[in-house]
Amino acid sequence: MSLFITFEGCDGCGKSTQSLALKRRLQKIARTVMLLHEPGGTRLGNRISYLLKWTKNVSISPTAELLLFNASRANLVDEVIVPALHAGRIVICDRFADSTIAYQGYGRSLDITFVKSTCAVATRGLRPDLTILLDVPVQEGLKRKAGTGNNDRFEQTDLAFHQRVRQGYLAMAQEEPGRWFVVDATQPRERTREIIWQKVSSLLGI
Amino acid sequence: MSLFITFEGCDGCGKSTQSLALKRRLQKIARTVMLLHEPGGTRLGNRISYLLKWTKNVSISPTAELLLFNASRANLVDEVIVPALHAGRIVICDRFADSTIAYQGYGRSLDITFVKSTCAVATRGLRPDLTILLDVPVQEGLKRKAGTGNNDRFEQTDLAFHQRVRQGYLAMAQEEPGRWFVVDATQPRERTREIIWQKVSSLLGI
Repeated sequence: MSLFITFEGCDGCGKSTQSLALKRRLQKIARTVMLLHEPGGTRLGNRISYLLKWTKNVSISPTAELLLFNASRANLVDEVIVPALHAGRIVICDRFADSTIAYQGYGRSLDITFVKSTCAVATRGLRPDLTILLDVPVQEGLKRKAGTGNNDRFEQTDLAFHQRVRQGYLAMAQEEPGRWFVVDATQPRERTREIIWQKVSSLLGI
Repeated sequence: MSLFITFEGCDGCGKSTQSLALKRRLQKIARTVMLLHEPGGTRLGNRISYLLKWTKNVSISPTAELLLFNASRANLVDEVIVPALHAGRIVICDRFADSTIAYQGYGRSLDITFVKSTCAVATRGLRPDLTILLDVPVQEGLKRKAGTGNNDRFEQTDLAFHQRVRQGYLAMAQEEPGRWFVVDATQPRERTREIIWQKVSSLLGI
């Protein structure tokens, strides 16, 4: 059975740790799992990701940013995600279209309907079966990231921006409770991991 | 009076020559003119353009291509074209949204409505006052370009693709005759230049 699971949340919420833990757990029960990260995941996507996050002295307008994230996503959907799901694999993606709606829509205050329709172009309607939102208060998430001393263009924006992103995520989860699963990620890491595993294993009927 | 003029046509139709000639002629009568080329025209756009045209070993799906061209375009519109038009300048652009409709829509056979709506996202509804289509038979255009020995990813695609692009341009010109001005660009260069000048000078009321 193929399954498409995405992890969402503000910076520092623990997406990388939890998505990797889920991948390993699924592999232990002999499932073929592919773990992907957005933006990136294809050669083109990695180039776009670098451009978006690290390039200096390049001014990027909000609409251009929206279209670049979606160009990377379209390539990932067409070349990696859709073929893997067709092959019956479990695909876990660390960030997907909901990140763009949260960051570019709610965060940068672009029109939400407009952002959603641009994402629909890139995904061609593909939606995750399950989206796990790791929710942490913005200041806590940023504090965790700051500890790494390695902050990109998005992590350097102001607190109000990150607050809008978090509220956006919570609003989306409320609108579509069947797909979203909100986890309080201020809990100990191991506890969060177990809560996620219960949800995923019940979905897989284990 | 601000004016937004675009040049369109298949590869080798003479857009660069004619857009430069028009710019010089307008400057001679003391008009402030900005000549731009797509894709590119901003730092971000130039990087995207390089990625689209020259990068080897990077697979780009048609939807990703569509979104990348429009990311470059959105940045150009937001940062260059709109401010220049607000300042009362004449902006000449060598290729604009119609190129994407012709190449990615008609040429690559993506859904035309879908391509048009993605372009509308990038341009935020900005349309040229005048679009000059330099029409040449596909084989003649490609022959001219082949002479330069410097062909990018698009110029290397097959003849049928370029035929669809040309037919697409002609269809668009027919749908919107008030904006499009079709010029037979197999004529001597000087003659084409004069025909374009008559059109533009009449628009400017000279």
